[in-house]
Amino acid sequence: MPHIELGNDEPGIRGLMRYRPETAGVLNELAEVLLRGDNTLSRGERELIASYVSTLNKCRFCSASHSAFAAAQLPGGAEIVAHACSDLDTAPITDKLKALLRLAGAVQQSGTAVTESHITAARETGATDLEIHDTVLIAAAFCMYNRYVDGLATFAPDDPEAYTKTADLIVTHGYTASMAQRGL
Amino acid sequence: MPHIELGNDEPGIRGLMRYRPETAGVLNELAEVLLRGDNTLSRGERELIASYVSTLNKCRFCSASHSAFAAAQLPGGAEIVAHACSDLDTAPITDKLKALLRLAGAVQQSGTAVTESHITAARETGATDLEIHDTVLIAAAFCMYNRYVDGLATFAPDDPEAYTKTADLIVTHGYTASMAQRGL
Repeated sequence: MPHIELGNDEPGIRGLMRYRPETAGVLNELAEVLLRGDNTLSRGERELIASYVSTLNKCRFCSASHSAFAAAQLPGGAEIVAHACSDLDTAPITDKLKALLRLAGAVQQSGTAVTESHITAARETGATDLEIHDTVLIAAAFCMYNRYVDGLATFAPDDPEAYTKTADLIVTHGYTASMAQRGL
Repeated sequence: MPHIELGNDEPGIRGLMRYRPETAGVLNELAEVLLRGDNTLSRGERELIASYVSTLNKCRFCSASHSAFAAAQLPGGAEIVAHACSDLDTAPITDKLKALLRLAGAVQQSGTAVTESHITAARETGATDLEIHDTVLIAAAFCMYNRYVDGLATFAPDDPEAYTKTADLIVTHGYTASMAQRGL
């Protein structure tokens, strides 16, 4: 049960967004620009970064949500996402994406946990400065979203279908428009 | 030296915002609504939450910045801010603000570190559900800003005047307008 009375029974961040529309808009816009804006990293790759960090933060709602959003947009689908999130070293993804996920994993611990070696490793696989920047910011942003969702003890549905249904909405319409569709 | 070539020599998050204007706008809007929007918590109190979390995250730039912004808007000024950030239990602030800072401290560790007892303690001092919500979200947001600033190894000026000058701008014009003034 959430720590505060939300006045609605929506799960995860959706319940919080309905409770506090004054902050919902900008939180959705941030997700939209980070995960769906123009970028040399694909939408699936960026959702995998979100899913990887949320998994490290043990945030059930965000991990299940962004794993579903990544699976819907990444070649290899759910199997690749689960593999990368549980055992990155052996996951059949590009060396560049692995290096960026390791960088994201350092950010999850702390900003100061990022060392020159994370950056060098990413560059050696062909990652650009902009991709390094965006990976750090996406990882940092999910350290916010995860804490928001769990710090207020929102609930996470058990049924996987709840997440794949939202994935359809997000992939088709994006974060901002999906929220508008839901009357937010 | 920053991990990536920013093409400007501005400190902290300002250098990152100039480098990546596509994400700067929404990051500023989030700070504006969280720290300066209509709220029963004063702007000084909310800046103190930002400063407290940034201090726990050992983010020099954000800690110095938001300490200066809190000092400029909180009765008691810099002394109270330094006292609360270094030894909360003995700080001469209200019991309500202490309870909210303890809640913010739990969020800094992890969303799941927040327990019912943090919430009950805050409620017993008169904190409303909305104030509890906003404290959690402000603390979570600074776990993002701090990781963004340090994860890319931006520099933090040593001169305290650098922060008090920015405080004047923020207090007078707010986050979004101050950035516009700086050509962002």
